[in-house]
Formats: sequence, structure tokens, C-alpha cells
Amino acid sequence: MATIEFFWDPVSPYTYLAATQLPKLATDCGASLVYRPFLLGGVFQATGNRPPLTVASKGRYMMGDLQHWSRFYAVPVTPPENFPANSVRALRAALVAEEQGVGEAFAQAIMRAYWGEGRDIASEDVLADVARSVGLDPEQALAANGRDDIKAALKANTEEAVARGAFGAPSFFVGDQLFWGNDRLELLRAHLTRAAA
Amino acid sequence: MATIEFFWDPVSPYTYLAATQLPKLATDCGASLVYRPFLLGGVFQATGNRPPLTVASKGRYMMGDLQHWSRFYAVPVTPPENFPANSVRALRAALVAEEQGVGEAFAQAIMRAYWGEGRDIASEDVLADVARSVGLDPEQALAANGRDDIKAALKANTEEAVARGAFGAPSFFVGDQLFWGNDRLELLRAHLTRAAA
Repeated sequence: MATIEFFWDPVSPYTYLAATQLPKLATDCGASLVYRPFLLGGVFQATGNRPPLTVASKGRYMMGDLQHWSRFYAVPVTPPENFPANSVRALRAALVAEEQGVGEAFAQAIMRAYWGEGRDIASEDVLADVARSVGLDPEQALAANGRDDIKAALKANTEEAVARGAFGAPSFFVGDQLFWGNDRLELLRAHLTRAAA
Repeated sequence: MATIEFFWDPVSPYTYLAATQLPKLATDCGASLVYRPFLLGGVFQATGNRPPLTVASKGRYMMGDLQHWSRFYAVPVTPPENFPANSVRALRAALVAEEQGVGEAFAQAIMRAYWGEGRDIASEDVLADVARSVGLDPEQALAANGRDDIKAALKANTEEAVARGAFGAPSFFVGDQLFWGNDRLELLRAHLTRAAA
């Protein structure tokens, strides 16, 4: 059985879009799906890559492009007012969710809150709400931000992704094969289908 | 009838990949396809966008990604030794090909020569060969490089694309809607299908 490692950061709209499609893709291909929170800002810093917004016309294009994808996938996209939000707190909470066995539910819920509903995931209230919605104790989710082991785990995920060749988000690994971007899901699917044949 | 304006530069591998799919897409959607040579280097200069190779891990990823697309589309990809090649001469020849009524054939042939076959499109011999292969006088094709009207036309195409919001290649316009990248062909198809409905 193949494994898709899904490196995600809720700040990235294309990561949200991919997350709306991935569970079905994994099921279709008989692959398991592992959610791995990582800090996109750290990836940019380590690789010299830059977010789309650093090029003005690319930033403008992105907003229209997201609406095209929203229609194409029939999923909501609501650009958040606070963009780019600091996602560190949310990512640390995601690692606590993982400990508690609700990693996937939390990952999906926090991405949907930010890019599906345009809520501010840097806010403690929103984080607590999202935690509650997946059965995670909000106190525990918020306390994640101060836990050294959790900070180290997020840093380790980020460094591992970079060491394996990632330079942006979403990044999908199947073994040592990297697929980058929501727009590579069909290549990922073709790769898994070939591997299974 | 909708028109797809296809801004292309043969230096871009994703532009070659898109070019292998576009004629069928246009036919499927009942759209006309207009080939518009532009200078990607000029676009980067004007917008502050940068080529993928400026991020080392992105450059490495791109080479594997191209092979995934090659398999996905079942078209050849042969990375040229001279990359990135100076494509100005080829683009100017493309404008002469347009004058002579073989613009599409030349565009397709020069992109295939570079990324399909890995030939050096900065070489006069290769340019002459490609011209000949589409029934264009090689002397005329090479002389394009010294013609002021042709130089100005290439510059005008590039400036127009930037003014309309382009920041990379391939860029497709349907009216004022921009689609950027080989990986947006399915969104372009969906857009044209909706427009026709």
C-alpha cells in the first residue's frame, strides 16, 4: 500500500484546495494519507523561494485563480481578511490533535476555516472553536503553542520536508517522489495508479 | 466564437507542454487559437517574477516534473543542454513566420525542437532547419533578427502581455481572463465550456 505524505500549512490556499480532493484521491488509489503539518514560512526561508504575493501581478492573478478552482472543484473559497496570517499556533495545535487521534479532522477543519470560510486562524477564539468542532480540548490545543516538544516537532517536519526537496506548499511525497501543488494532483494520481499496476 | 491568445516563448518547458495539448483543446471547445510570441525574459524583468531555476530545489524538481508530464501527455521531453537558451532570435523568426502564414507551424516546430528534441534553438543552423521544415525561407527567418519592425513587434507583444497581467509563461488570455501555466489547461477548458453554454 502506497503512502501519501501531505505536508500542509493552512496559510496556503492551494493547500486547502488540495485538501478538499486528497481523501477521495487516496481512496481511489488505495493509498494511505498521512497529514504532516509544516511551516511554509520556514520552507521559504530555507530555500529562497518566495510567496506569490511578492510579485504584484501574481498576487492579483492568484485571487482570480482561486475562484476558478473553487468553481472547478465546487468547493467554497472565501479569501480571509488576515492574509497571510501567522499559522504557527494553528500548526502546533495540529500536532496536539495528531497526538489525540484527531489529526486529520483538525487539519481539514483548520484549512476549511481559513480558506473556505475566511476566518482568522491566528485568533485564539477561532482556534478554540476549530478544536472543539473536532472533539479536541481547546485548552490543550492552545497550550500547544508553549510546549517545547511540539515546537521541536513542527521544526523537524519543516526541516525534513526541505531536506527531501520541498520548496513550497502543498508538498506530497510518495517515497522520494515529490509532487508540488494542488495542480499536481492528477500527476500524483497517475503515479499511484502506475505504481499499483 | 471564443479566442485563446497563447503567449509563448520556446525557452519555457511548460509552454512546450501546453502547446502539445492546445490545438485539440481549442477544437474541442470550438475556440480559435492565436499564437503570440513574447519574450519571457522581458516579462520577468518587468514584473519582478523569477524563473524556477533561481531556487535550486525548484530547479531540480522541475526536471522530474517535466518527465511526469511527458508520461502523462505521452509526448517527448528532452532537456536541452543549452538551457536557458537565448530565444530572441527564434521569437523574431516566429513573427516572420506569422507574416508568411506559417506562424502556428513554426511555433509548434520551434518548441518541439527545443524541449521535445533538446536541440539548441539559439543556433542559426537549428533555426534554419526549423524554418525549412515549415516551408519558411531560412534566409528570411534569420534576417528577422535585424528587422526593426520585427524587434518592435516582439517588444509590443511582451509589453501588452505584462500590461494585461501576465507574469510568466505560458499565458493564455480569453478576453481579459488570464490563465497561467500548462497546469491551468483544464481550468481554461472549463471556462470555455461554460462560456459556450
